[in-house]
Formats: sequence, C-alpha cells, structure tokens
Amino acid sequence: MRHDQRQANELRTVHMETNYLKHPEGSVLISVGDTKVICTATVEDRVPPFLRGQGKGWVSAEYSMLPRATEQRTIRESSRGKVQGRTMEIQRLIGRALRSVVDLEKLGEKTIWLDCDVIQADGGTRTASITGAFVAMVLALETLSEEKGWKKLPVKHFIAATSVGVSEGNPILDLNYMEDSSAEVDMNIVMTSNEEFVELQGTGEEATFSHQQLLDMLALGKKGIQELMEMQREALGEVASKIGGE
Amino acid sequence: MRHDQRQANELRTVHMETNYLKHPEGSVLISVGDTKVICTATVEDRVPPFLRGQGKGWVSAEYSMLPRATEQRTIRESSRGKVQGRTMEIQRLIGRALRSVVDLEKLGEKTIWLDCDVIQADGGTRTASITGAFVAMVLALETLSEEKGWKKLPVKHFIAATSVGVSEGNPILDLNYMEDSSAEVDMNIVMTSNEEFVELQGTGEEATFSHQQLLDMLALGKKGIQELMEMQREALGEVASKIGGE
Amino acid sequence: MRHDQRQANELRTVHMETNYLKHPEGSVLISVGDTKVICTATVEDRVPPFLRGQGKGWVSAEYSMLPRATEQRTIRESSRGKVQGRTMEIQRLIGRALRSVVDLEKLGEKTIWLDCDVIQADGGTRTASITGAFVAMVLALETLSEEKGWKKLPVKHFIAATSVGVSEGNPILDLNYMEDSSAEVDMNIVMTSNEEFVELQGTGEEATFSHQQLLDMLALGKKGIQELMEMQREALGEVASKIGGE
Amino acid sequence: MRHDQRQANELRTVHMETNYLKHPEGSVLISVGDTKVICTATVEDRVPPFLRGQGKGWVSAEYSMLPRATEQRTIRESSRGKVQGRTMEIQRLIGRALRSVVDLEKLGEKTIWLDCDVIQADGGTRTASITGAFVAMVLALETLSEEKGWKKLPVKHFIAATSVGVSEGNPILDLNYMEDSSAEVDMNIVMTSNEEFVELQGTGEEATFSHQQLLDMLALGKKGIQELMEMQREALGEVASKIGGE
Amino acid sequence: MRHDQRQANELRTVHMETNYLKHPEGSVLISVGDTKVICTATVEDRVPPFLRGQGKGWVSAEYSMLPRATEQRTIRESSRGKVQGRTMEIQRLIGRALRSVVDLEKLGEKTIWLDCDVIQADGGTRTASITGAFVAMVLALETLSEEKGWKKLPVKHFIAATSVGVSEGNPILDLNYMEDSSAEVDMNIVMTSNEEFVELQGTGEEATFSHQQLLDMLALGKKGIQELMEMQREALGEVASKIGGE
Amino acid sequence: MRHDQRQANELRTVHMETNYLKHPEGSVLISVGDTKVICTATVEDRVPPFLRGQGKGWVSAEYSMLPRATEQRTIRESSRGKVQGRTMEIQRLIGRALRSVVDLEKLGEKTIWLDCDVIQADGGTRTASITGAFVAMVLALETLSEEKGWKKLPVKHFIAATSVGVSEGNPILDLNYMEDSSAEVDMNIVMTSNEEFVELQGTGEEATFSHQQLLDMLALGKKGIQELMEMQREALGEVASKIGGE
Repeated sequence: MRHDQRQANELRTVHMETNYLKHPEGSVLISVGDTKVICTATVEDRVPPFLRGQGKGWVSAEYSMLPRATEQRTIRESSRGKVQGRTMEIQRLIGRALRSVVDLEKLGEKTIWLDCDVIQADGGTRTASITGAFVAMVLALETLSEEKGWKKLPVKHFIAATSVGVSEGNPILDLNYMEDSSAEVDMNIVMTSNEEFVELQGTGEEATFSHQQLLDMLALGKKGIQELMEMQREALGEVASKIGGE
Repeated sequence: MRHDQRQANELRTVHMETNYLKHPEGSVLISVGDTKVICTATVEDRVPPFLRGQGKGWVSAEYSMLPRATEQRTIRESSRGKVQGRTMEIQRLIGRALRSVVDLEKLGEKTIWLDCDVIQADGGTRTASITGAFVAMVLALETLSEEKGWKKLPVKHFIAATSVGVSEGNPILDLNYMEDSSAEVDMNIVMTSNEEFVELQGTGEEATFSHQQLLDMLALGKKGIQELMEMQREALGEVASKIGGE
Repeated sequence: MRHDQRQANELRTVHMETNYLKHPEGSVLISVGDTKVICTATVEDRVPPFLRGQGKGWVSAEYSMLPRATEQRTIRESSRGKVQGRTMEIQRLIGRALRSVVDLEKLGEKTIWLDCDVIQADGGTRTASITGAFVAMVLALETLSEEKGWKKLPVKHFIAATSVGVSEGNPILDLNYMEDSSAEVDMNIVMTSNEEFVELQGTGEEATFSHQQLLDMLALGKKGIQELMEMQREALGEVASKIGGE
Repeated sequence: MRHDQRQANELRTVHMETNYLKHPEGSVLISVGDTKVICTATVEDRVPPFLRGQGKGWVSAEYSMLPRATEQRTIRESSRGKVQGRTMEIQRLIGRALRSVVDLEKLGEKTIWLDCDVIQADGGTRTASITGAFVAMVLALETLSEEKGWKKLPVKHFIAATSVGVSEGNPILDLNYMEDSSAEVDMNIVMTSNEEFVELQGTGEEATFSHQQLLDMLALGKKGIQELMEMQREALGEVASKIGGE
Repeated sequence: MRHDQRQANELRTVHMETNYLKHPEGSVLISVGDTKVICTATVEDRVPPFLRGQGKGWVSAEYSMLPRATEQRTIRESSRGKVQGRTMEIQRLIGRALRSVVDLEKLGEKTIWLDCDVIQADGGTRTASITGAFVAMVLALETLSEEKGWKKLPVKHFIAATSVGVSEGNPILDLNYMEDSSAEVDMNIVMTSNEEFVELQGTGEEATFSHQQLLDMLALGKKGIQELMEMQREALGEVASKIGGE
Repeated sequence: MRHDQRQANELRTVHMETNYLKHPEGSVLISVGDTKVICTATVEDRVPPFLRGQGKGWVSAEYSMLPRATEQRTIRESSRGKVQGRTMEIQRLIGRALRSVVDLEKLGEKTIWLDCDVIQADGGTRTASITGAFVAMVLALETLSEEKGWKKLPVKHFIAATSVGVSEGNPILDLNYMEDSSAEVDMNIVMTSNEEFVELQGTGEEATFSHQQLLDMLALGKKGIQELMEMQREALGEVASKIGGE
C-alpha cells in the first residue's frame, strides 16, 4: 500500500479539460493527481530554417513552471536570464516524443508549437505534459482538416507517457512528488498505441537497477499508458477516430 | 452601446476563485471578462539587501503571460533571454501599488512575492493583476496572523485597479483588447478604499487628451474600482474584516 | 520657501545649448538646475520591421546615465549585461511622448533616434530628457527640410515635460533630487503647446493622493511646461516658426 | 557486416592515454575509433551550496566540443553566449552517472570536477566521456589517498558506457557517426561492474522500437561495457585494485 | 603638411576642464582636437576580491562612447547586452596604465574607478582617456590627503599617452580619425614623466613596419607626451607639486 | 642561467604535429615547452557582412583554453555566459596578425577561421597560437590550390610570434609561466619573414621600461622568431615553397 492508498500498479486520478483556453488552436488542462499542466498547441505557417523548402513540417515543444507550481517558490527562468538544463531536457523530450507519431510530410510546411505550462506540480510533470500535449496537438491538427482535405489526421498513433520507479525495492507506477524524491530508481516511459517504445529514460540517481527490475517497471508502465490512452480517446471524442490505426 | 453590449460605465463580468492552487500561501484565479490571471502570494523570511536589518518588510511582484494567452503566440521571455520593457513596467507598477497599502514595519523582515501569470489575455491584464494580487496577498498575510498575533492584518486599505479610456471621443470603463487597440487614450487607475489615488498612468499614444476628458475618465474609474472592491470583500469573506479601516 | 529658495511654483534655471556635438543631425545640452542631459537626434533611413512598406516613420528613444552622474557611482548597464526596468520605462516614455507630436506619415520611412544621456543627475532627468529631445529632434528634422521640400516640419505641436509633487502636504513644481526623495507623491506631466496632456504618471510610493491634490499638481505642471516651451522657442530660433500651429 | 568491417557486436578500437596533461589531478585522452576526448578530473576543496556542512562530497561534469571536432565547424557556446540544450543534457548525464559509483560521504566535503572536451567527434562522444571520465576521476581520487588514509578509494564499482542502436532492423554495438545518423533507434547504456544499470536512454527519433529490440540492444550493450571495463582496469594498473569490489 | 595644416610632429589643440561635474571626487572634460572625453574618478572603500585583506588598493577603468559620439550612430553596448572586444581592450589598457604610476600599498584598501565616456570621437579616444583619467585620478586622490595625512600623493609619476602612426610612409603624431583610417601603422604610446614606457601597442593592420619606422614613431610620441604632461601640470595647478618626483 | 637551464636568448623546445585532426582543412598541435595548442583552420565559403560583394576574403580567429589547461581550474566562458576581455584581446590579435600576411583579394570571398584551443598552458599561449595558426592556415589554403589554380598561395610572408621580457633587469626570450608571472615587463612580438613588425605589445604591469630595454628585447625577439620560422618551414615541407617570397 502506498502513502496515498494506491496499489503499486495504480495511476492517480486523471482529468483532461479540452479547449480550456480561447486563443490556441488546441488546448487542454490535464491533471494527474495534483499535477496540473496547461497544454496548448499553436499552428505556425513556417518551419525552422533547417527544414525550409522540403515540404515537411515540424513539432516543437516548450515547457515551464509557474513560480509557485512548487512547494517552494522557484525563480523564473526569464529573471535568471537563462533556461535551465532540466527545462531544456524536458522540452527536447516532449518535442521528440510527439514528432515520432506525426507524419511530418503530410503535415506540410507548418510548425506545431506545444506549450506545456505546469501550474501545479506534484511529480510526473514531464509525462503529464506529453500525455496532454498529444491531445492539444490533435485538436489543433483537426482545425486544419477542412483546409487540408484530411480524412485522417497526419497522426500515426496515440502517444502517452508515465513514470515508473523502484521504491524500497518495489516497482511502482506513476510516482507523485513524495515518492519520486525517495525512490531509488526513476524511469520515464513514452509509448505508442501499437505498444512500441518511443523513449525510455531510466536513472538510478546515486543508485543502480537490475535487469529484472527493469522488466518489472516496463510492465507497469505499459499498463498505465494503456489506461492513459483510454482517457485521451474519451477526451478527444469523435476526433479520436481520425487518428491513424483507429 | 459597446460592441459587447456594455454601457460606457460598465465593468465586464468578474470572478475570483480563491485558494486556486495548493502550494502558495495565498492564491486566486481572477477573471475579468475573458482576461484570466493566476495570482499567487508567497511569504519569504527575508528582505532584499537594501532593507536588511531595518525590521521592515517588502512586497515584490512578477508578471508574465503564457505564450498562448494571446491571439498570436508570443515568444517566452526565458527563450529570449531577457525580460521585456513592458513586463518590467507592469511588475514595477504592481509592486508599488501593493506596497502602498501594506504596513511594512508591522510586517517585519519578510517579503511577500506576488506572481501574476496571465493565462488568457483580453485587455486589462495589469489592472486585473493588481486587483487579484491584493486578494492573494491578504490570504497569505492571514496565514501569518496566529504566529504574529495580529488582530488586524498589516493592510491599511483595500486596493483595486481598472482601466479607462477615450474611444471615438467617449470615455469608457474597463476596456477589452479590441477597445484598447482602437482607443485614443488609455489610462490605468489604481485607488484605495479611502478613495485616494495610488497610481495614475494616462497615455495618449500618438494622441492627446484634454483636462475635461481626464476628469470624465477619473469618474468612471472611481465607480469601477468601488465595484471591484465589493467583489474583493466577498471573495475574502471573514478575512476582509481584518483589513484596516473596515 | 524651498531649501533652494524657490517658490512652490518656480522652475529651476534652465539652459539649452543647441548643436552641442558635431556629428549628430540635431543635439542639445539641456540643464535644468544641476540636471544635465545631452540629447541627440539621429536620422536613419529605415524603420523597424513592423512598419516596413507602410510609408510611415518612427521615433525611438534611448536613455542612459553616466556612472558618476549620480551621487554614488552606478554600475554601467553594459557591465551588468542588461538594461534595467527603470531605464526601459523612461525610454519608452520618451519615445511615446515625442511620437505624439510628429506626423509620422509626413516623415516617411525614416526613424528618428533620440539619445538622452544624463551626465549629471539632480532629479527630473526624464522630463529634462523629453524637453531637450524635442529640441534635438526639431533640429534634426530641419536638416531634412530641403530634401523633403517641407515648409512646415512634420511636427504638430511643441512638447515639454516637468515633474510636480506633494511635499509635506504642499504641491510643488520641478522637484530636485532632495525633494524627489522626500516627496509623498511624484507626478510626471507631458503636455503639448495646445494644452493637452500626452502622459500623466502619478505615483504615491508607499502613499496616496487625493483628487484635490491631483488638480493642484496639474495646475503647477501646466504653468511650468508653458515656461519650458518659451525656452524651447528661443533655443530653436527661426526654426520654431516651422512647427505646426506656430 | 558494417561499413567499417565490424561485426554487429564489435566495439571500435579503444585507447586510453592516462596522465595526458600535467596540471590536472587526473587526466586521460580516450579514443574510441575516431572519437577523441580529453577527460580531466579536478579536486576542489568545497561543495555546492546545497551540500555545505553535511560532510558529503559532490561530482560535477562539464562537456564541450572544439569547433572543428566535427565535420562542419560549430560555433562556440561562449560566442553564442549560452550553453545549448544538448550540452546540458550530456553534462548532467555524465555527472549523474559518475556520482552513482562514488561514496560521497567517504569523499568528504570536496567536489570532483570532470571536464570532457571532445577534440574529434565520430559518434558516441557522451559514452566515451563517461568511460574516460571514470579513469580520470579514479586517478584524481588516488592523489587524495595518502592525505585521507584510504586503503580503498571511495569508488564502489567501475562504470562505463556505450551506445547501441537498431540499423535497418538489426541491433548493433558502438555506433559511429555515420551509423548514428541513419539508425532508427539510438540507446545509451551506462552500467557498473556488478552488472547493474545506472542509466538507460533509448530514443526512437521519428521512429519506435519493440520490447524484443530493447532486449537485444541491452545484451549487446552489456557485452561492450564489459570489454570497456577491461580496458579501464588495464589503463589504471595497480590503482584498479583499490576500487570497491575488486 | 597634414590635411588640418598640422606639422608631422604637432599635437592637436588640447583643453582640460577640471571639476567638470559636481558628484565625482575628481573629474575632467578633456578635448584633444574634436575628441572629447568626460573622465571621472570615484573613490570606493573596498577592493576587488582577489586583493582583500592585503592592505593594497586598486585602480580600475571603464570606457564607453555615447551612441552619437561617432559619425554614424553606434548601438549601445547595454542594448546589445554585451561589452565589445574593442571596449574591453581599451578599458584594460587604461586601468593597467594608471596602475603603473600609483603606489597601491600607500593607497590602502581603496579602489579608484576611472570612467572615461567619449562624448565626441575624432581619433585617439583611448590616449585622450589615459591623459584625462590621470588628471581626474589625481584630483580624487587629493580629496583623501587630509584623511590620510599625505604630503605627497601616492602617485609616482605623471602619465600621459598619445598615438603615432605611419601615413604614406611618413611618421606622424596624434592622428585624427581621418588619418587613423588611412594610416598603414598605428601605435599607442603611454609614457611616464621619467621618460619610461608603460605601454607600446603598435599594429600594422594588413601592413607591417620596419625597425627604423618604429624608432621614428617613438621619437614623435615622446615629444607629444612631454607636451601633454605640461598641460596636465597646468590643469592640476598646485596639486601637481604633490606628485612623486616633482 | 634561467630556472629551466635556458640561456637568456634561448627558445623552449618546439614541436609541430601537422594534420593532427581529421576533420579540419588544416590543423597542427604546436607545443612550445609545456604550452600546447591545437590550431585548426576552416575554410568557409562566405565573408562577414561588411565585406560582402567586394571579392575579398577574411581571416578570423578564436582562442580558448580548456578548464584544466591551467594550474587552477578556470570556469568555462560558456558557463559564465560571456567571453572575457583577455580572450577577446587575444583573438583579435591573432586575427589581425594572420590577416597581415594574406592576400585577401587573391583569396576571394572566403573566410579562414583559425581556432586556437590551448590544452595545456605554461606561458606564451598567444604567441604559440599565432605561430601554429600560420601553419594550419597554410595547410588549409593548400587544399584550395587545385580548385583555385594557385601556383603560389595567397600568403605574402611567413609570420611567427614570441614573447620577450625583462626579469630582474635582464632581457629574456620566450617566457614560461613562472617567468611571466615575475617579469617586470612583458612584450609580445609578431614579425614576418621579411623582418618587419606586425604587432608590438609591450606592457609594464605596475612597472615601466626604458628605451634601451626596448631595443634589447626587440633583438631577442627577432632571433627567436627566425628560429620559429625555420620550424614552420620544416613542418610545412614542400608547401613552404608556395609561400610568397620563398
């Protein structure tokens, strides 16, 4: 039994409020337990310099936290004058993950900007961002459907993410902040709806983990991600059927 | 009649959801029409260097917008690597305004950080920030009451703010973004509950205004601010009675 | 009586030395009491990106202080690596003010850069900068007269600025540094020669001000600004007659 | 057969020249095929602020590339004025990895700085950095042995790293730059001499990978890392016997 | 004959207006032909970290140009966000030069800040800065005389600087901007009143110079510097006699 | 006799390993005593903005040190977020020096980037950089010979550099770090193979030097530079004969 009464293989309560904001092409307020992230998707009619003229699109992500998303107030990165390493790592991860399920040729020369702003943090902000950003991105792509004449969106699979870890020797799913702080091992798993991995990032900060522990964590992660995808389907409603493979 | 059917002297619909976030000492989600700002107040047990050892506290504000708070996506200031002039102006204004109603000696060597993060922008974000930050600040101060043995909080008056302007020659109250863009004159007014001014910032961008127009705008502003203070009182509930002069 | 023997409604001694430097198209060394500012105006044959191709000009201002313009040495902003909030506020104010009296369409696709460098500071540096920058700008525009075939310069009115305040309950005009430091209220007023306001920025730092005090300060400001405009006329000599409305 | 005639499970030729530089406490020039990295270890008599007074040490890493380590010249990060996301990710990885095998309590309040400077890049620079930095770190710790009276160094295990990937559907070990550019999946594996994982970072950039492919890559990685540890032992000579578990 | 009618060995007209500003401990407005520099000296009661506790003082210089000191407007270094290489070179040169004639032990733990702000540039701004900064520094040191009980100031010699060059094969003294732009060789010479060199910086930008040309330039430089020192003596009046060796 | 047994007029042992790296068009690892610098030359098919369309090339240099090139670890400039004054001075010097011997018209619209990265420092890093960068540059230019149809490279002379100084009153050649730290005077001399000066930078940090000492130092420098040029000729082998004047 975990301190919040969850089973080892149990996700926290998840909610997704779609079209949370009026300006973005797609937006969702996702909450995973007490972790809350505003994910927005913006369609921009150009691509980064290295892609120009290739008829191919791009997906780029940015991630940030409000100063009091955390227990202690964090200094803003704009005040520091630079983006921290942790932030860069996370936004690169989100971008890579989402690009892996988008058919960039079919998208054409457009960039989808995914902004993930954590308004309350309680562990798992990067995986909640990926799960939520997918929903925002699909909503934004849907706004292009008519103009583009798409029957299916240029999205090959669903994608979602969760964290798993080893705490006091036991593998657990979806760590909250308290669990994350004390776990020996922390692994983020990003998977698609065809049960393939997109990213695996396992770290034993000042610790290590065995082959068997790895397999146990992967099993937990797969279960959690399948549940998350069910919720994504529900949040997207009819649009879900326009995703490849559905 | 204005394009959103308001009278010239009518505020937009205002809501304040107090204790919106779990970590900050005080927080409110304020909405003024479609403008939505998360205001949080953090108590820090130290003061800036220039105040150390004087037994006096400080109030400091920071302001930011999510990239898609706006119609077009705005580049993050953390990505630019610097805070823009407009942002600095606004956060200096919020800080000055709130300091004017706090008894800094009574507060003692503590800093109250006010973070105003605009999640949706439709004009009047700086005045909504001041109005909301006051509520968040009072809630945060209340958490110190027991420790400090305060019967009254170290807050001398209520403070709230709104914008007024001149559009096609007519003075109007609480401009939304569309009105703000086309107004000849734009003025932000910050007042206290004893009907005194804290800040007046009137600007005729590529235009000018007469003495009579100034007087008309001041009258509208005073009316709007009194209504905003009624809503602050309601949002604060019992705590409102612990503010000086109440 | 004030500590420097002035009446409440009396300006400090003002001098303007036009064409102070040899390179700029227009320049003036303005002194208002012990406050001394070098104002230069540069004509640039292009406009900022947001204006390109519209046949319209622009006026932009920059403001800085020498490290020992002040009682204590101030660290250079170039050494800090960033421009401070106060500086940004001031240069935005100067730019907005001067733009309000220029006919930007008639100017055509040119930018007038106004550089205000304070070499000695004793209060009122931003208002002295506006008053001096106007003179430098007019001199620079005059150099375009022949090429442009202008009989009148594209300047609609004179513009000048001063500060007013409340000190020990009394309204006073043109505060020096000592007065500014101890005043309860500080207001900067920018007016045109047709007696309209361009900017009003009144602040009660840790204080407030009443409606009546506001009216008293406005009256003082108007008187001072009219006197400053007389001195601008004199400094400009014949060129003054080429300003709109003269 | 790979384009450089290697078997799928074959490392490139590896050399380690210890004490390559005269100033650092420990240094090695490691080459893995054409990838060459200068790794140095510096002992500093203090720890970062968050650790002060706890009697515990720290290990921190920095990573950089010479401008012409690469096929095309890369702009220096000092000229850009900021460290890029990729660099931050890599130096955070190196630091975390090395910390996992150091007994920080036994080290006491000292920081070991690991500088990994790539002078020639041909794929696998981050894993070569980890493998080389371990050797430099052990040499630096040995210089403290006498002063500290250590019979065993405060190093729990050997640690080394390599990359594995999937290229045209086949798992391969130790990818060079050409292979890395065309592989569908790229995974960095960091392991200890007791066959546990420290870090797993698998990425399918615009692709995905299956559970079986993951297992195949892990087997290749384990083989390669064991060979790298043999070379570390040889390079360290007698000092190798002072590492925990040997 | 030079284009401004000077002889090859003739300085431009030099003026020094001492105590030009009211706040600094020492100040001078130096003009060398059309080059005008405001030099101020500030006494600070502490030294840089590397000198603390050694009972020794320091002299540090900063150099800048107003945007329209030059023919074309130059972007401010504060706007660029960084100090340029040329500026750094010059301020390091000024600091080194002035330190060479100050008895830093006798000064005690104080820093003299020398700020050289070019308000009008016409060649030779760095040498004019050194010559002027010496005067400002001596005036500032004199303000410490009573407190320190100095009969002689802690200044070993006079120091002054000028530029020499080779233009169309002929050595010339004190180049103005036009000459500097077309000269094949440019050399800055800093000398003391006992006829020793402090700095020699000779550069053949895209050219070279012979041993004989070097000797000719040194002779011109020595003559010019002696004349500059006469003017420094005059500007300093009685204080000149308190400089070592006088 | 010097502490390392050298005569006053004796260089340290010099080695140049050409084509040290595989990617750059030209590269050399130069060692001068214990000072070791990797110099690379990169050919880029464009020139800086100020030269575009003039048919003329450019030579630009960058200089850096590995953190542990020095006795104490130095913080990376990329971590500081800015390039230091000393670095800028050095890279400007290297660039100017090398440009003086290149026929930029003959080169055409190309830039040669010279990167000098000090991997071990023991005094004289800037002069070793110039001497080594010349060799790397010539090797890079040779790769253009066929394409350009050059029989002679666009290089007018050899160029090399060394330092000289005055230590305990005696002139000495090629100072190592220990000598440099204690010398009264330090001078860097850059000369061409036709015995002309390109740069002279003599500094008496907190000291001065006489005319005779200058002449003595110049004689030592000339001798050392001639020996360095012999080694450049040897390192370049046949390519040396394609340099102008050979």
